[in-house]
Amino acid sequence: MTIKMEETKNPLRNIVKSEFPYKGRIIDVRVDTVKFPSGSEKIREVVLHRPAVAMLAEDADGGVYLVKQYRHAIDAEIYEIPAGLVEDGEDPACTAARELQEEIGLRPGRLEKIAEMYSSPGFTTEKITLYYAAELAASKLPEDEDEYIKVRRFLPDELDVLVRSGAIRDGKTLAAYYWLAARRGGR
Amino acid sequence: MTIKMEETKNPLRNIVKSEFPYKGRIIDVRVDTVKFPSGSEKIREVVLHRPAVAMLAEDADGGVYLVKQYRHAIDAEIYEIPAGLVEDGEDPACTAARELQEEIGLRPGRLEKIAEMYSSPGFTTEKITLYYAAELAASKLPEDEDEYIKVRRFLPDELDVLVRSGAIRDGKTLAAYYWLAARRGGR
Repeated sequence: MTIKMEETKNPLRNIVKSEFPYKGRIIDVRVDTVKFPSGSEKIREVVLHRPAVAMLAEDADGGVYLVKQYRHAIDAEIYEIPAGLVEDGEDPACTAARELQEEIGLRPGRLEKIAEMYSSPGFTTEKITLYYAAELAASKLPEDEDEYIKVRRFLPDELDVLVRSGAIRDGKTLAAYYWLAARRGGR
Repeated sequence: MTIKMEETKNPLRNIVKSEFPYKGRIIDVRVDTVKFPSGSEKIREVVLHRPAVAMLAEDADGGVYLVKQYRHAIDAEIYEIPAGLVEDGEDPACTAARELQEEIGLRPGRLEKIAEMYSSPGFTTEKITLYYAAELAASKLPEDEDEYIKVRRFLPDELDVLVRSGAIRDGKTLAAYYWLAARRGGR
């Protein structure tokens, strides 16, 4: 796993010990002992995670594509915008185009970067590049094995109802939805 | 650490083995071996994390309060809306009011739940309850030790510039910003 970190010389980054208690498939855990300016020492737990992409795909009629999938970590089936992990050396925009074809069978003619966001900077390196995808054309790539996902298209009003009901519980998906709502001129 | 999970009987949740390779301060790691309907077995890594709250605090003049703090995991100092972890047995709304007093020295007269969002449901249980806080009154509670945070108030135009420049890189903060932009009737 390659994680590119921004190097700082922050006075709060006085690491006196660093250990890797777990190295796994999609995450590694690093535990740093940090000495603060006050003299006290504390540990900081870091979950190393690959960068990811997520795509708000909107068609010419305002339809937005969500995937419903079972998420083991939270033991629930939830709606999310299409997303995926960036492979080593892959351009995030290429990941975005590839994942859209794998997950919803559409290739974006236009891909606009909305933002780069850390999903939870208090403990993990995971960074998601969020895209707006448009000018969608049919183009299906095979899905990963054991991905059991259902794709659904929502019109603006349907999506508003879904969000207001609390059915959308994924951070990146809510961020994308509010972004779109702001762009459409408010809800 | 108490994590409340929604129980499902999802056919994709056939856990044949479960291990805890790391139990730490703010996270535990659980590794499950899952047998899929296809017959294949895969591992699923889960980072157990306490629930959190985050607050978009807006004063009567449209000023929004952000805290700038060094985040060890990403080795960078970033702007975020005030946030904190929910203590065992604590009502998230109480956490929100407490953290606002600790971090920005203001107590909300009104607290409106915007959404509950999983920060990254692919691998972690962390759920953030996002609030809109208003009718702010001066009320300072002491900060946690070794919290080196700076508070800054941004007017709507200043915040727009900050987001457009890419300086806001925290997921919950961007979600809150877009939510506010949509409510204000678009950017």
